[in-house]
Amino acid sequence: MRTFQLDPRLKNDCEWVCDLELCKVILLKDANYPWLILVPMVNDCVEILDLDNAQQQQLWRESNIVSHTLKQLFTPDKLNIAAIGNVVAQLHVHHIVRYSSDLCWPKPVWGQHPAKVYEAEKLVQRIEKIAQLLLQK
Amino acid sequence: MRTFQLDPRLKNDCEWVCDLELCKVILLKDANYPWLILVPMVNDCVEILDLDNAQQQQLWRESNIVSHTLKQLFTPDKLNIAAIGNVVAQLHVHHIVRYSSDLCWPKPVWGQHPAKVYEAEKLVQRIEKIAQLLLQK
Repeated sequence: MRTFQLDPRLKNDCEWVCDLELCKVILLKDANYPWLILVPMVNDCVEILDLDNAQQQQLWRESNIVSHTLKQLFTPDKLNIAAIGNVVAQLHVHHIVRYSSDLCWPKPVWGQHPAKVYEAEKLVQRIEKIAQLLLQK
Repeated sequence: MRTFQLDPRLKNDCEWVCDLELCKVILLKDANYPWLILVPMVNDCVEILDLDNAQQQQLWRESNIVSHTLKQLFTPDKLNIAAIGNVVAQLHVHHIVRYSSDLCWPKPVWGQHPAKVYEAEKLVQRIEKIAQLLLQK
């Protein structure tokens, strides 16, 4: 079995948070939104349909855990959950905290505004807090 | 128990395809893309987290059935699956067939182009074909 490799673009745009049973959890480096991405550690997987049934169930269990964690930490007005993948083919599922006061509300976030750079300390703190909560669940 | 009511905007923008066990399946009246939306028939539901565990599992089973059907009928280059809900709060999950040749590839479709009106006959045929396949599965 080949070792799982994270897509280079995801690797570049995100910071690693933790690994769950099926998925890597990564955080997009855009301080405009708390934005986590779940990436199933399965090679050559593009569509959710490419996962077998047990893996799909696990993906949605982990999506549920991530959603609960984001809700607990950030009290969003809305969570946006999406598997798009038109640019990066490797299957990945966005979980984005949205507020009615955010930069591009009510539009979806993709392709609207350039990413805002995180302050280094804030980024580290955010990742630590999220990882701690995720690994407790 | 209150009867489930589809959000007026979804009702206006879509045609009913069929009811599955949990969800209404509706088709967005935009001939640019084969575009189905799953709406769990549960009142006052905004986030996936608002569904109980059994309902969440059923939602993703039905998403799987819808995805298989779209794949079989339309051979997409990519499926886009998303629960956004910034404008229409009632929980609904988009399933959109994308082609690398489509109008706004590789961008996500929301807010990019006005909907293209379906020819009446094509719309009826499409809905019948999709409903037939969904109800077989």
